[in-house]
Amino acid sequence: MLEREDFVDENRVRLAGRRLHHVREILGTTNGDELRVGIVGGRTGIGNVDRVDDDALEMDVRLETEPLDPLPLRLILALPRPKVLNRTIAAAASMGIGEIDLINSWRVEKSYWKSPRLSAESIRMQSILGLEQSGGTILPTIRLHRLFVPFVRKELSGEVPDKLALLAHPRGAVEAPRKVEQAVVLAIGPEGGFIERELQTFQELGFTAVSLGPRILRVETAIACLIGRLF
Amino acid sequence: MLEREDFVDENRVRLAGRRLHHVREILGTTNGDELRVGIVGGRTGIGNVDRVDDDALEMDVRLETEPLDPLPLRLILALPRPKVLNRTIAAAASMGIGEIDLINSWRVEKSYWKSPRLSAESIRMQSILGLEQSGGTILPTIRLHRLFVPFVRKELSGEVPDKLALLAHPRGAVEAPRKVEQAVVLAIGPEGGFIERELQTFQELGFTAVSLGPRILRVETAIACLIGRLF
Repeated sequence: MLEREDFVDENRVRLAGRRLHHVREILGTTNGDELRVGIVGGRTGIGNVDRVDDDALEMDVRLETEPLDPLPLRLILALPRPKVLNRTIAAAASMGIGEIDLINSWRVEKSYWKSPRLSAESIRMQSILGLEQSGGTILPTIRLHRLFVPFVRKELSGEVPDKLALLAHPRGAVEAPRKVEQAVVLAIGPEGGFIERELQTFQELGFTAVSLGPRILRVETAIACLIGRLF
Repeated sequence: MLEREDFVDENRVRLAGRRLHHVREILGTTNGDELRVGIVGGRTGIGNVDRVDDDALEMDVRLETEPLDPLPLRLILALPRPKVLNRTIAAAASMGIGEIDLINSWRVEKSYWKSPRLSAESIRMQSILGLEQSGGTILPTIRLHRLFVPFVRKELSGEVPDKLALLAHPRGAVEAPRKVEQAVVLAIGPEGGFIERELQTFQELGFTAVSLGPRILRVETAIACLIGRLF
């Protein structure tokens, strides 16, 4: 994944640091190799590597392919444990989720909100790792909401008339729908689930509680299951 | 998750070690609490805790609920990197996959087969962690196959007449099917995919290459997406 500041000339890129290391050690790239590349927020294409050594990799790039469209999905996610947050964001970005709202909930421990993994840089890095995996280039928009009720009542109420509003819930009365044609706003609770009062707040707004079956899945597994099903 | 040897009497269980630690430190269980429990391979139910201290937890258990049936899915998985293997097995077990064959493939590095994570104990522990997450109790049957061609030709050829045989492939010509009624045998390649010759071997047996869209997903994300879609 390339950034604007990697360009040393119109079509020429110089990389160092993490990406140089990845390309040398994991991909085993040498002079003359082609790399699949993409620019954050933009096109993808090919880079022709003509220098790779301890200090830098340089290549001429052609970015001719339009980026993959994000999925028409806004994910409302009770803030996961810090350990889980990174891989959840990377997985969500890899699947092409366009918008993620990390929200508070009764069962979210207060300490989670102090995690350094919530810094803008950390979240952006996890998103980029997910996009590098998948070949996408559009970063998800990720917002933090430390107050449950104002967020759900004010910010979400505008979404429900136009979108299919779903709440993943182990005791959801109906099966999660398949192959939807509408845009979706999907809420997923914390470990242990939303409490009754929170469920009611969502349901009063028009969210439907849907189930993925009798098994309780980890958040990143549940998100992937739901995406495979909805889209 | 309980094992036969945890029982000190017909309905009485004593736990120490990892599960004692989990119950005390993560769940914060104290005397008088109820725990959801299940026995490996069998029923689930409730335990009434009446002792919990540094040495042990003891409870009386009632196991009255029949176990969740495994999904009618045999997963054929090119052996992932050791780091990825653990979480893939735990995720697969949590979703209820009943059978997993870990196979060799051109792009599987030989060193992966030497990983201590392939020991029977390590694989069993990851399966149990997945089941503890989800509430399932039936351990998946997990087999290792270090030779690609004999496994695919001999062991898989018997499966194809009766099952829907799918191969997840980024350039698969057709979309992965939805809500299938048949049992499924699903093959997933290594990072970088199966090579052309391997694809042909599967296709000659009757496997259909199916796509999950233009994004390249991590193996555990792809498995969850496919399960959400197929079942």
